[in-house]
Amino acid sequence: MSVLVVGSTALDSIKTPKSENPRLLGGSASHAAVAASFFSPVKLVGVVGEDFPKRYVQLYRKHGIDLEGLQVTRGKTFHWAGEYEVNMNNRRTLATELGVFETFTPTLPGQHHDTPYVLLANIAPALQHHVLDQMRRPKFIVADTMDLWLNIALPDLLKLLRRVDAFVLNDSEARQLTKEDNVVVAARKIHRLGPKYVIVKKGEHGAILSSPSGLFVAPAYPLRKVVDPTGAGDSFVGGLVGYLASRKGSIDANLRRGMICGSVVASFCCEGFGLRKTTQVTRSMIDARVKELEGLVKF
Amino acid sequence: MSVLVVGSTALDSIKTPKSENPRLLGGSASHAAVAASFFSPVKLVGVVGEDFPKRYVQLYRKHGIDLEGLQVTRGKTFHWAGEYEVNMNNRRTLATELGVFETFTPTLPGQHHDTPYVLLANIAPALQHHVLDQMRRPKFIVADTMDLWLNIALPDLLKLLRRVDAFVLNDSEARQLTKEDNVVVAARKIHRLGPKYVIVKKGEHGAILSSPSGLFVAPAYPLRKVVDPTGAGDSFVGGLVGYLASRKGSIDANLRRGMICGSVVASFCCEGFGLRKTTQVTRSMIDARVKELEGLVKF
Repeated sequence: MSVLVVGSTALDSIKTPKSENPRLLGGSASHAAVAASFFSPVKLVGVVGEDFPKRYVQLYRKHGIDLEGLQVTRGKTFHWAGEYEVNMNNRRTLATELGVFETFTPTLPGQHHDTPYVLLANIAPALQHHVLDQMRRPKFIVADTMDLWLNIALPDLLKLLRRVDAFVLNDSEARQLTKEDNVVVAARKIHRLGPKYVIVKKGEHGAILSSPSGLFVAPAYPLRKVVDPTGAGDSFVGGLVGYLASRKGSIDANLRRGMICGSVVASFCCEGFGLRKTTQVTRSMIDARVKELEGLVKF
Repeated sequence: MSVLVVGSTALDSIKTPKSENPRLLGGSASHAAVAASFFSPVKLVGVVGEDFPKRYVQLYRKHGIDLEGLQVTRGKTFHWAGEYEVNMNNRRTLATELGVFETFTPTLPGQHHDTPYVLLANIAPALQHHVLDQMRRPKFIVADTMDLWLNIALPDLLKLLRRVDAFVLNDSEARQLTKEDNVVVAARKIHRLGPKYVIVKKGEHGAILSSPSGLFVAPAYPLRKVVDPTGAGDSFVGGLVGYLASRKGSIDANLRRGMICGSVVASFCCEGFGLRKTTQVTRSMIDARVKELEGLVKF
């Protein structure tokens, strides 16, 4: 089945102590859509300006991503510039130029309304709501977010939580949202806000799923070298939803392996700047790493 | 087979925002010996003063721990006092009174020299060396340490690494020792210093084993409430070595499950002050949690 992905479509300029990489393909929807495309057909909903490089459109196409929902608008593409420190755990934003994102309202093309899997990748909760308003009873809705929306759009986000099946956030966001240090207890509190499935991402330490059938502790793939972690969280959730949409059977039965698939795509994402490595990967490379992870946790 | 455990035997006064607990049974050897005792016969080597409460001797005995190597010396038992902040990740030392530990030299009773498994729990590397000097070709030697010895006794510690089979340390110590942020790469560098097996503890995020047969990613048991993490690392390594000593077959074949057993005993340790919870646990409670962890990582 297919996945509708809405989120940001951006140009990222990423600086590390060793190199500068201007205007890479970036944004939550770009990472999530490419990640999901390894498993299922993907429809991208987003907006870019007239300056958006054609080669990036071709990159989406190479991954079979349906671009009918990608608006091209007069103005500049959303541009984010950031800098990482040596250990890659600390980054600071150098510039955020919203461009055409400032006035973006995602309007879905006709045949998008019936997409069974919806991934509301990181973007303003108001826009995530706007997409849901246009959907006809999707089978499964996953929302991702970031600390910014907890800070400036919490009421919108809390309303959204009552409309989604699964909510994905990182450990510091879970702490911020619930005022609770313990991840397991924080996840329980988030269930009470609406979502049946709560997934807390812990970066290099993996992720935890809290669901009606209990907890699942997902490892991260142990990388020897992280080149650029930008988009790893988006890749995780993209791979997860893409996998779910590709499988028959209940969500509960598929969610664990879905998280592992997401974790593996995220690991590839970290091995190159922007989407460089992710877009060179094949499904069999992903499957091999999933199998490897299976061996790494066996006892 | 039996395990010889050498380390500190102490009285711990532990303060949290909610309570004060003076003169609990503590020390690396106490935690490690009790943890190991669930799996194998244990011989404790350490020193206490005349003030050491009889009930703590009885507690060791209740766990079948051989106390022939526990010296009782004129003076005061090593006393540590510390305080935890609300989230339990930050602690500060309020007092360290070495007492009889200041002049301690571990001398092994006759029949201790042939113990097949040796656990050098956290204690000055010079004392760890001194124990090894008295051993007759043990089957397997594991050493634990702490940041203090990296700071003040690094040459001794580096010499020790060439004499042990397995070395256990936490992630920040691994970074300190190798000047390397990536845990997997740090483990590789530590192999070059001597140990065939390197285990990096990551607290609530579990542990990683690097061995000739590859990596193993061990989860931590997801606790809803941490009462007192003091001794969790000692319990981990104690449970690990106790399990190894109880099993036939190669170390490689048993090390993964040994880490899980250690992880489970450590989880119980965190649920009470000092050794209170650990000493109330039974082997079947441990086995149940090991089975639960097996389910928590399955996908």
